Amino acid sequence: MLLSSCSKWEQIFVLLSFLFFIFSSKKQERMRPHFVLFGDSITEQSFRPGGWGAALAVAYSRKADVILRGYGGYNTRWALFLLDGLFPPSCNSPPIAVTVFFGANDAALLGRTSERQYVPVEEYKENLKKIVHRLKELSPTMLVVLITPPPIDEDGRKEYARSLYGKKAAELPERTNEMAGVYAAQCVAVAKELGVPTINLWSKMQETTGWQKKFLSDGLHLTEEGNA
Amino acid sequence: MLLSSCSKWEQIFVLLSFLFFIFSSKKQERMRPHFVLFGDSITEQSFRPGGWGAALAVAYSRKADVILRGYGGYNTRWALFLLDGLFPPSCNSPPIAVTVFFGANDAALLGRTSERQYVPVEEYKENLKKIVHRLKELSPTMLVVLITPPPIDEDGRKEYARSLYGKKAAELPERTNEMAGVYAAQCVAVAKELGVPTINLWSKMQETTGWQKKFLSDGLHLTEEGNA
Repeated sequence: MLLSSCSKWEQIFVLLSFLFFIFSSKKQERMRPHFVLFGDSITEQSFRPGGWGAALAVAYSRKADVILRGYGGYNTRWALFLLDGLFPPSCNSPPIAVTVFFGANDAALLGRTSERQYVPVEEYKENLKKIVHRLKELSPTMLVVLITPPPIDEDGRKEYARSLYGKKAAELPERTNEMAGVYAAQCVAVAKELGVPTINLWSKMQETTGWQKKFLSDGLHLTEEGNA
Repeated sequence: MLLSSCSKWEQIFVLLSFLFFIFSSKKQERMRPHFVLFGDSITEQSFRPGGWGAALAVAYSRKADVILRGYGGYNTRWALFLLDGLFPPSCNSPPIAVTVFFGANDAALLGRTSERQYVPVEEYKENLKKIVHRLKELSPTMLVVLITPPPIDEDGRKEYARSLYGKKAAELPERTNEMAGVYAAQCVAVAKELGVPTINLWSKMQETTGWQKKFLSDGLHLTEEGNA
């Protein structure tokens, strides 16, 4: 399992546990501390069977609520429009932890079928910074965890396109693993610059042989094993 | 009107102040409607892989939050102690729906290994009524759904006890299907009396041949198919 070899979700678990124990002694207005999972479709799907979001909810059962804020198709540019609504400045019980998991859509290639989701890498970086700053303004002690986009299995993306469009499917995949890696590296750089933890999913997943089919269901989204 | 004596700018200012107050107080409330799943271990485990709680969270993704309030081992008597904490009377954003799923522990038999969980059936009925009344007081429009205890596979319970205690396991199961059925019938009766919907899990599950192993993992808790 990925957890035993890479411990990516274990990292979240340990960090959240640390925060939980700090905050559980503080009386908050909300009945229970809560985490928010903020991201694109990979976050939105995280409560599906075997999903990492549901696994977090089980791990924190009777201790903390796990609130899902996943928006399929969103990139960081569109995520910025959601910030005020999701994390209002006047909120008096902010989440104690937020996972920020964008990049898979930002890294869609120009000139390919998903180009409307494309965000230039420099803007992606700035957008991530804005998101982190905004969350930290809400609560300086909030644990903000950046998660990089996962790697891309280009063959898997092409197969998926063929399954949808048959012969009309584009010859070239709309995302490449190399480009996802560029965005992942910038995500890690932002995390380092801002002093927040990060999970380099792009890199971690590729440490396991056969990651393409083992961890990804359509070349992009996670399988049950990819969630573990 | 009081405002008629003020200048139009003063009127606008007062109206804007009023609107701002409404707006800002609403912003502090929970941003999305939410459901609460209130129950015992069967609810607590509902975010495990294939669980019904996680399935609800997926079904209502981007529409409503599903909040888990499952307490392993609890009966309705102990559930009453939680009500004020979980559903404070001062709460200005009550859940729009609550599932109340108790009875499996209330129906444990006197003189058997789980007797400390036992609650007489008349008290179970009264406790359920108190829970429903309390929730409806909080919000008369709240959807309260009562769920009956599931059926019991007595052989499954004995096997489970043997897996835990070996030869020391009690000869007789701590729950019987017949007694679970008595509590289920009372749950249905309470729902009918109070005019709230109910899911008769005890009855529904037994309509399928082989329900004992198909739907129950240890004679009591749900398998993935039992969750479906």
